[in-house]
Amino acid sequence: MKRYAIGIDYGTNSCRSLLIDLEDGAEAGSAVFHYPSGEMGILLDAKDPQVARQHPQDYLDGLECVVLGALAQARERVADFDAAQVVGIGIDTTGSTPVPVNAEGAPLGLLPQFKDNLNAMAWLWKDHTAHAEAAEITELGHAMRPQFMAKCGGIYSSEWFWSKILRLRRVDTAVFEAAFSFVEHCDWIPAVLTGDTNPLRLKRGVCAAGHKAMFSAGWGGLPDKEFLSKLDPQLADLRDRLYSEAHTADTKAGGLCAEWAGRLGLPEGTAVGVGAFDAHTGAVGAGVKEGTLVKILGTSTCDLMVSPADRPLADIPGVCGIVKGSILPGYFGIEAGQSAVGDLFLWLVNHLVPDSYGKTAGEKFANMEKAMEGRKPGATGLLALDWNNGNRTVLVDARLTGLLLGQTLHTQAYEIYRAYIEATAFGALTIIQRVEEHGVKIGEIITTGGLALKNATLMQIYADVLNRPMKVSRSEQTCALGAAILGAAAAGAGSWQELQAKVTAVREKVYHPVPENATVYRELHALYHELHDAFGTAAWSGRLDHVMKQLLDLRARQR
Amino acid sequence: MKRYAIGIDYGTNSCRSLLIDLEDGAEAGSAVFHYPSGEMGILLDAKDPQVARQHPQDYLDGLECVVLGALAQARERVADFDAAQVVGIGIDTTGSTPVPVNAEGAPLGLLPQFKDNLNAMAWLWKDHTAHAEAAEITELGHAMRPQFMAKCGGIYSSEWFWSKILRLRRVDTAVFEAAFSFVEHCDWIPAVLTGDTNPLRLKRGVCAAGHKAMFSAGWGGLPDKEFLSKLDPQLADLRDRLYSEAHTADTKAGGLCAEWAGRLGLPEGTAVGVGAFDAHTGAVGAGVKEGTLVKILGTSTCDLMVSPADRPLADIPGVCGIVKGSILPGYFGIEAGQSAVGDLFLWLVNHLVPDSYGKTAGEKFANMEKAMEGRKPGATGLLALDWNNGNRTVLVDARLTGLLLGQTLHTQAYEIYRAYIEATAFGALTIIQRVEEHGVKIGEIITTGGLALKNATLMQIYADVLNRPMKVSRSEQTCALGAAILGAAAAGAGSWQELQAKVTAVREKVYHPVPENATVYRELHALYHELHDAFGTAAWSGRLDHVMKQLLDLRARQR
Repeated sequence: MKRYAIGIDYGTNSCRSLLIDLEDGAEAGSAVFHYPSGEMGILLDAKDPQVARQHPQDYLDGLECVVLGALAQARERVADFDAAQVVGIGIDTTGSTPVPVNAEGAPLGLLPQFKDNLNAMAWLWKDHTAHAEAAEITELGHAMRPQFMAKCGGIYSSEWFWSKILRLRRVDTAVFEAAFSFVEHCDWIPAVLTGDTNPLRLKRGVCAAGHKAMFSAGWGGLPDKEFLSKLDPQLADLRDRLYSEAHTADTKAGGLCAEWAGRLGLPEGTAVGVGAFDAHTGAVGAGVKEGTLVKILGTSTCDLMVSPADRPLADIPGVCGIVKGSILPGYFGIEAGQSAVGDLFLWLVNHLVPDSYGKTAGEKFANMEKAMEGRKPGATGLLALDWNNGNRTVLVDARLTGLLLGQTLHTQAYEIYRAYIEATAFGALTIIQRVEEHGVKIGEIITTGGLALKNATLMQIYADVLNRPMKVSRSEQTCALGAAILGAAAAGAGSWQELQAKVTAVREKVYHPVPENATVYRELHALYHELHDAFGTAAWSGRLDHVMKQLLDLRARQR
Repeated sequence: MKRYAIGIDYGTNSCRSLLIDLEDGAEAGSAVFHYPSGEMGILLDAKDPQVARQHPQDYLDGLECVVLGALAQARERVADFDAAQVVGIGIDTTGSTPVPVNAEGAPLGLLPQFKDNLNAMAWLWKDHTAHAEAAEITELGHAMRPQFMAKCGGIYSSEWFWSKILRLRRVDTAVFEAAFSFVEHCDWIPAVLTGDTNPLRLKRGVCAAGHKAMFSAGWGGLPDKEFLSKLDPQLADLRDRLYSEAHTADTKAGGLCAEWAGRLGLPEGTAVGVGAFDAHTGAVGAGVKEGTLVKILGTSTCDLMVSPADRPLADIPGVCGIVKGSILPGYFGIEAGQSAVGDLFLWLVNHLVPDSYGKTAGEKFANMEKAMEGRKPGATGLLALDWNNGNRTVLVDARLTGLLLGQTLHTQAYEIYRAYIEATAFGALTIIQRVEEHGVKIGEIITTGGLALKNATLMQIYADVLNRPMKVSRSEQTCALGAAILGAAAAGAGSWQELQAKVTAVREKVYHPVPENATVYRELHALYHELHDAFGTAAWSGRLDHVMKQLLDLRARQR
């Protein structure tokens, strides 16, 4: 008998479903729901550009819409499809996206008294209102609990759980006091589906807990009360109303409750898996395993790796998070990333590329990529640092900015675009080298995300810079696919290993490094590395007068 | 009785005349002649983009046209004007623009056998075919005659006299052997007017000789034969057919000959002054004197100063040329400059500014300047180095390139434009500081050139960065005005001091520094200075990790 699982992926502006055949990963159905609230699903505050919230009602409306849509499509596509064949449901969301809830687990934003209060809504990952609180937590962490800081790369982010809660405490007493507890978006959806949102009972995922809330078995779960009370006594009190256990995403959160079974047209009791973050399920859906780096190449990038939990793994300086079980059960999940990749190119094309390259951003990109054809590495004479949005890994420093060097009076926009692609590739190489230096071998790179699918120029440059083949995940929806795999595992439809092996694959097209390009890029990377350390670290001291000359020599050779 | 003088200014694409009343500098007439040959007056070689030559016939046709035009205009404008009131003629040209001539001083390009040979034409200042020869001269100079190199800032340029002659020797034996001598464009025109172009008799100007041909009384005139023969024995032979004396531009080259008196409609015997380069007469026309820096702000900039020759003046490291009498008699002429200023902005607007700012370069500039209005220094968070075309002063290094730092995902084109204006201002400040450190006090800045007249935004930023008032020369044609002053002095119509005092002036509009902006720019300049030394000098060693952070702090304060 055929068995299916459904993955539901909550993104920043929309959510989508993917229904897969567990035998071969064939995609039986899929649907997208664009959040109707706010600006493309994001609730903004005209007075503060750092505010980014979401309406919990969008999550519920989307849930129903995308499941029904996927099932309807499957019934059309697959002759003998039956919703009873769906054995598991997996959930992934953005994060950290904490939701203040009452004692029953109802989001405060759904209650009449808070319906117009942005502070009562879900605090979306990219809400940056809590930057001062993040700095405070970081400072206290280093002073009082350096072990907390070591696990999150040395800096606690304004995007994370405790920063946002502390911020709420400071700016909105009414909402804070009404909040019995806080639940990550990825934990709240499974709870809703199982019919029990009680904050003290609902199963929390180790992915959100470990990467964003400083939860670790190493120090007894969440940060201790002594630490929290130094931030605010009420945070210490709150600790009792949060959680003391966190689960891997192949754990069953519960069975689908009658109400939601009815709304979705699925059998009551269908297994619902514990939730996780999108990048992490994306890694699973792309085929992450020991020795494989999954790169999610989008507006920013996420780099995900695993390392067996039965072998000790040292902290890796500058790598944002190492959390046991956060990607795959039995493995340390290792997460790194670059703050701006696609965003960097979009900035360039929107602000610095003349219309002679085309009318739309898409035309401009296409024509710039065409102009690059047949030109050799180093021929631009340019070198850039990819820090326009700071540096997440390995410098963990949001207060870094961009740099472009080597311009002449003949430098063209497409050459600058190429320099930025190369800079992001050098940034990617820096991460790989750092991780490998600390004992995590990378034998294979699988990419996913918009740039992996659409930008062949970038993929070839990455292959040449990283000097490794660049593979591309078969599925265009690796996050939902990974969620489906974990949901199926939670249902007992097989181990995640078996399921992943069956349903994930890479495409035939692999980008292989061109040896002579790789040689040139080694030389360019050495210069990038110097600039990286000179502008990004306090440890560097030296000379830089050779940089422009070497770029000119290289340019002369390569033209 | 009224007295007039006429200045004739030979530029890169055209020549122009200016007829002035010597009592008050009133402009009685002016005319322009666009060279008809080649591409906007420049003879190009499709096979070699570094070739830039000019046709000597254009010089002669232009001479007649612009003098007749100015006189005709004066007759219309001034009731009782009489060409007999013109007492002196002064000449300035671009340079170094050497012309190969036969024993009678006829340019070889005017002879039938060489009429189609680019090598027989005038080698325009911006011809860069001789870069290898320039490097050879520089190397030999440092090894054998370091004193030569000290006077020209350490590097002999491909744009200069000996490089071009050596190049000709290497690539065209026929033309080289037919060349009895070589005459600078600025020396050839006065010789033509006086009716005696004999290369051994015609009066050479000290401006061209000293700045471009390594002529100095300190070592007995032109470079010695031993030195020249190391480059090529034929150069040593040529030395005897060049010159052993060089004159200041207030010296009378001779009286106007009958033939040219007839062609121009001026009295025979009218005094003709020794020629000089355009930037140098431009300084005179702008009112250069001890303590005054004249800045010619155009595609590149020229900075000109004088220092009394009766006081010793040490070499100023990195300043291209210090030549006694090259600007004003009795003074050391000091020349410095920046390789790209207007050109840098043109590059930006042509290659990196989207059409949302306007359809033409002019519209884009205007709208970017408008967007800057009311924004404070430092608010961009950006810092640039102005080296897209190398650095002429104080680093004297053509092999330097541009740098832009501090970009975020929100950086706009107009902010980058501002950063580049600031960078050129910091470059200007670097020159001023270097010169002052070596004993040349600058109490006043007078500007001239296109940017001084048309770009109020730039002028205010310069005033703030240099923290000095920026004055603007009254005349729009300071080069021709300076030539007229020197021509009148050569005629004995007064000393150049008296004449200059009467006919030059600055405009009422002066750009005054805003103290709070000057304070911020001091801070930004300190960062520029660090980048300047880090990327431009071998002497620097240090750290740079504070640069981006300080820019962000400053940005936060200024927004």
